Amino acid sequence: MAGNTFGNILKVSTFGESHGVALGGVLDGVPAGIEIDFDAIDYDLQRRKPGQSKITTQRKEDDGVEFLSGIFEGKTTGTSIGYIIKNKNQRSGDYGDIAKAYRPSHADFTYDQKYGFRDFRGGGRSSARETAIRVVAGAIAKQIIPDTSIKAYVSGVGELKLKTPYNEVDLTKVESNIVRCPDTDMADKMVNLINEVRLAGDTIGGVVSCVIDGTPIGLGEPVFDRLQAELAKAMFSINAVKGFEYGSGFEGSKLRGSQHNDLFNLDGTTKTNNSGGIQGGISNGEQIYFNVAFKPVATLLMPQITIDQNFKEVELNPKGRHDPCVVPRAVPIVEAMAALVLADYFLINKTRRI
Amino acid sequence: MAGNTFGNILKVSTFGESHGVALGGVLDGVPAGIEIDFDAIDYDLQRRKPGQSKITTQRKEDDGVEFLSGIFEGKTTGTSIGYIIKNKNQRSGDYGDIAKAYRPSHADFTYDQKYGFRDFRGGGRSSARETAIRVVAGAIAKQIIPDTSIKAYVSGVGELKLKTPYNEVDLTKVESNIVRCPDTDMADKMVNLINEVRLAGDTIGGVVSCVIDGTPIGLGEPVFDRLQAELAKAMFSINAVKGFEYGSGFEGSKLRGSQHNDLFNLDGTTKTNNSGGIQGGISNGEQIYFNVAFKPVATLLMPQITIDQNFKEVELNPKGRHDPCVVPRAVPIVEAMAALVLADYFLINKTRRI
Amino acid sequence: MAGNTFGNILKVSTFGESHGVALGGVLDGVPAGIEIDFDAIDYDLQRRKPGQSKITTQRKEDDGVEFLSGIFEGKTTGTSIGYIIKNKNQRSGDYGDIAKAYRPSHADFTYDQKYGFRDFRGGGRSSARETAIRVVAGAIAKQIIPDTSIKAYVSGVGELKLKTPYNEVDLTKVESNIVRCPDTDMADKMVNLINEVRLAGDTIGGVVSCVIDGTPIGLGEPVFDRLQAELAKAMFSINAVKGFEYGSGFEGSKLRGSQHNDLFNLDGTTKTNNSGGIQGGISNGEQIYFNVAFKPVATLLMPQITIDQNFKEVELNPKGRHDPCVVPRAVPIVEAMAALVLADYFLINKTRRI
Amino acid sequence: MAGNTFGNILKVSTFGESHGVALGGVLDGVPAGIEIDFDAIDYDLQRRKPGQSKITTQRKEDDGVEFLSGIFEGKTTGTSIGYIIKNKNQRSGDYGDIAKAYRPSHADFTYDQKYGFRDFRGGGRSSARETAIRVVAGAIAKQIIPDTSIKAYVSGVGELKLKTPYNEVDLTKVESNIVRCPDTDMADKMVNLINEVRLAGDTIGGVVSCVIDGTPIGLGEPVFDRLQAELAKAMFSINAVKGFEYGSGFEGSKLRGSQHNDLFNLDGTTKTNNSGGIQGGISNGEQIYFNVAFKPVATLLMPQITIDQNFKEVELNPKGRHDPCVVPRAVPIVEAMAALVLADYFLINKTRRI
Repeated sequence: MAGNTFGNILKVSTFGESHGVALGGVLDGVPAGIEIDFDAIDYDLQRRKPGQSKITTQRKEDDGVEFLSGIFEGKTTGTSIGYIIKNKNQRSGDYGDIAKAYRPSHADFTYDQKYGFRDFRGGGRSSARETAIRVVAGAIAKQIIPDTSIKAYVSGVGELKLKTPYNEVDLTKVESNIVRCPDTDMADKMVNLINEVRLAGDTIGGVVSCVIDGTPIGLGEPVFDRLQAELAKAMFSINAVKGFEYGSGFEGSKLRGSQHNDLFNLDGTTKTNNSGGIQGGISNGEQIYFNVAFKPVATLLMPQITIDQNFKEVELNPKGRHDPCVVPRAVPIVEAMAALVLADYFLINKTRRI
Repeated sequence: MAGNTFGNILKVSTFGESHGVALGGVLDGVPAGIEIDFDAIDYDLQRRKPGQSKITTQRKEDDGVEFLSGIFEGKTTGTSIGYIIKNKNQRSGDYGDIAKAYRPSHADFTYDQKYGFRDFRGGGRSSARETAIRVVAGAIAKQIIPDTSIKAYVSGVGELKLKTPYNEVDLTKVESNIVRCPDTDMADKMVNLINEVRLAGDTIGGVVSCVIDGTPIGLGEPVFDRLQAELAKAMFSINAVKGFEYGSGFEGSKLRGSQHNDLFNLDGTTKTNNSGGIQGGISNGEQIYFNVAFKPVATLLMPQITIDQNFKEVELNPKGRHDPCVVPRAVPIVEAMAALVLADYFLINKTRRI
Repeated sequence: MAGNTFGNILKVSTFGESHGVALGGVLDGVPAGIEIDFDAIDYDLQRRKPGQSKITTQRKEDDGVEFLSGIFEGKTTGTSIGYIIKNKNQRSGDYGDIAKAYRPSHADFTYDQKYGFRDFRGGGRSSARETAIRVVAGAIAKQIIPDTSIKAYVSGVGELKLKTPYNEVDLTKVESNIVRCPDTDMADKMVNLINEVRLAGDTIGGVVSCVIDGTPIGLGEPVFDRLQAELAKAMFSINAVKGFEYGSGFEGSKLRGSQHNDLFNLDGTTKTNNSGGIQGGISNGEQIYFNVAFKPVATLLMPQITIDQNFKEVELNPKGRHDPCVVPRAVPIVEAMAALVLADYFLINKTRRI
Repeated sequence: MAGNTFGNILKVSTFGESHGVALGGVLDGVPAGIEIDFDAIDYDLQRRKPGQSKITTQRKEDDGVEFLSGIFEGKTTGTSIGYIIKNKNQRSGDYGDIAKAYRPSHADFTYDQKYGFRDFRGGGRSSARETAIRVVAGAIAKQIIPDTSIKAYVSGVGELKLKTPYNEVDLTKVESNIVRCPDTDMADKMVNLINEVRLAGDTIGGVVSCVIDGTPIGLGEPVFDRLQAELAKAMFSINAVKGFEYGSGFEGSKLRGSQHNDLFNLDGTTKTNNSGGIQGGISNGEQIYFNVAFKPVATLLMPQITIDQNFKEVELNPKGRHDPCVVPRAVPIVEAMAALVLADYFLINKTRRI
């Protein structure tokens, strides 16, 4: 099967390795006549870009996207949108040691076992660089459902956890700091923690939360293609994701039904929102919210003992640039994948009544 | 889109409402020549069946499956396997009140909004009765990858949480008690809690954990169709699921890379297993383990104020049978969906090398 | 891959062997709220049924369909429609010789080679009996696009060919004779020819033509999923089909552009219709018409020398019932597959503009 | 739905307009470790290229393909292969008149009606220029099943028809003349006819035949995804195709079963091959052969009366370059689409037995 395609009616197919010529995608199924906001695409790419602040990797990437088709005189034509992002730094010379070693908790070992072959240049296809292509597709997807707002933010770094509920967070403050946490005090603590970790040559995990407002009622295709099922798949398709919960989530499993049920108001909205905007796999018009857990980045700037492809012990001693914590840059990626799901299901839902 | 189909090479399409004539499925893509163990299918159905113990609903269902095709002289033929489970109790008379009311945190409201139409008979298609069809498909899927064992168990009921790590649990004890918790002491506490909740007419959530042993190396199709992404989708396609985490999960997001990385042994296995058996979206041969959070069942045996389809306030006062806690019966459902994913990806992986 | 599913938004998955317990299907993606005309379904089934006249097989089949889900109070609910047709005659005893022999130009040899296994009971899954399930799905699909009429008829039997152009045929006369040719004189000749062939224990091929009226403009999804491409796939998925042409077809390849181009009228319709109602893969609102060539049935009532599964020479000497010419009964099957394509593409087309 | 993706396990997604920046594709699902023969790709592209001889359009295109991913050190890595072909001539100025007019038998009208929008630059997405991207994918697909040879040739131009049976044609002579007909005398006649048509500013249709040798037994996924069904879809996805027949084809529909049945030899091969290498939807190891009918190109170098987007009458008076007959350049396109189907089904077939 071809695992590089995501979506049904709205479908993106991607390609590209971290150190190849270019990465790219084909976004198909976009309705015709949408006037593309290119600044919005660039804005999301900038938020994903390496080197954007002192707490992200200082690696330089030029994430300028070139559109090759599907847009004419600024509007979508209904045909497939092809686009690429060129790699400017293709220094395969950097990767001497890594070429032989299996880095712990990376994809080196599994790719080699699966394909009998390994592109050792910086992770190849398994590098998170491919997510830039998702961000472009997601930024277009957001424009398909314009009354819906999809906003993600960092709610956890290591043991630090933002306790403010999703519906009390001030989403206008997410971009006010480099860690993308909407609480300024917590943001400072998170930045300090990431810096401390960075100086130690270590990395740390975190949590991205996402709030979706204005979802039309009726999105979701039970029994298998429930809205939350596709959202979950979308999130777990992102590098380093280890957990996903929506609505009341894992905490909800501790409650009783009498505490958990969302009672109706007389207009069909609900008094509470433990359901997280989805009931029976279908959006009910309330806010959709979810948390995504990311593990710490596996690449450390400290020595690690590992094995090479001949199963001999070797020491890794990496130098240079790394991302001490992935969550600040994961914010636009989470949004992009959520947007792809919502736009796809929005289009699918048009087919359920004549 | 047709949301009632799951899988790629191995594909199941299902149908059926809780109070219709029958439920059923088409399981397609099963390799030819597999000798079907019908007792194993029946065993899994028995574990899902209502009325199996005092802590599940006392509703009577006869989950006898009839195979209609695809199996000849006890072996799969390579053609699609059709099967049905008949509904014996089609008492639509039971549902007078519910026919007009939207039950809180059920799918009544969203189905009505989406389809302009509602089958009010006990939830119709949104009833968890459809999972019986998944259990049959999953029980066959398990037989496609026979060296792989997939074992789920209850690790949480309400605030009660089994703290034993996945790899220290005695999986042979899961079926030794009615709550399906492998720790006998914890099982007793869970049974007592569920009973207490049941007598109060209330319900309670819980967590099912699953351990998969013997997965071949190489299953998973990056970048989108990672093994964990499909597992996540599979789990969130089950009624009442609110959270999924694999490997280190949400706890892993609190760790540092130096704590989290799984170092290699000289044979390619790893010393720890925070990765949960999957690296870069591809199985690495270690145990796959994950947790699935279930919310409390929405149907309560106590009065609730709600609205009806005319958005008028009504009181629900349900009587009779209900499931106070879904997780004991969810164990075989989690296994079934995991088996469908693993068998599908096992077959897909045959195509990645010539 | 699971080859027993057809369609995208509207999707049918089928199962069943000629001599198993039952055949059936799951039709998913039907919009909600359609009032089902069950008589129309029965009408199409009757037209496909064996034993309907002296020129078809005298084999008895009871093609009564049972709907198991997806329809409530006579209307579609938007959920998957499950249905079965039971086999009443499961006389596996009939097939002694055939169980060992590979019948010439049947699927016996290829199934055995592919699956390492063979259900020898009357062809098993390769029997045309499975088309009854398609006819049910197609009869429902016709009701999704009610202003579109899909009418097929027999235009050729052996060397006999109806020369009347598709737009001069009187489609109201198709059902006026047992061969389903709308020209009464030609119908008589065809019946006589089939009878002559039948008495000789032989079989004969033929051609089914189809005219679709009232197709909305805009159906078709270039570049790969052109409307004609999906129609072609649909027709070649039917047993015994060897050729498909639409519009000017093979004859059109002999013409010059100045002869072939369809000039426009001032209302956007065209003066001629060599395009067959499709331009650039998208319906243009003109009539869609096409021809489907069927080979002669492979089962003969005369001795044939063949080989068995040990590659030893054996003589086949079949007795009893056979279809001397398949095209009269293929008429509703062609219509059904065309309807599935059109309804699917009709639903897909709803997603191409916001 | 996204109509720009073809295939299942082996899947190509394409994009690009005739006068945009570039065309391109993502070929996903290619097994790892295949050493790519780039000359073979170039060879097929050269055969499709405009301006290759006096009987094709003199339009200049530079069909140099750039591979952007998925190939490392000359071998496939198992990840998606991205590639582009740049457009060098983007002279939108050429298309003044055409920008307003609907050209007869082109896709102008239907695209405008479907998408509410039209890219008038030389046909945009509906231009046959997109087939260059298919040829690249097909040339790689051929390398996945190396023992299988796929050879197409021109067997008809207008009324001229090569009568030599498929199995008596000398396939080594196809490339010995510019019309790609393996019979030299007939080739001369065809060239003369095309030249005559070209000088008249007219165009003419034709037939491409294809012979596939060495197909493994067992490819094809009944009941819907029969090998011939997918081949038919593949061919009808090509611009200008009006008919497809395989094996005995339309002529076979005139025969009796006693004439048509292919009797077995003692080694499982057949004495005749009316089945065209496929029985019951599954390849039987004999040669697969089929014919594809192409209509005459719609663009004429003579005046035509038509309508514009305001449904007003206008005269088209095109100048310059056009393709008088498409079939010589269609030969590699037919091969490419056939190769994509065969390689896809070859990979799928690996999953049918454990």
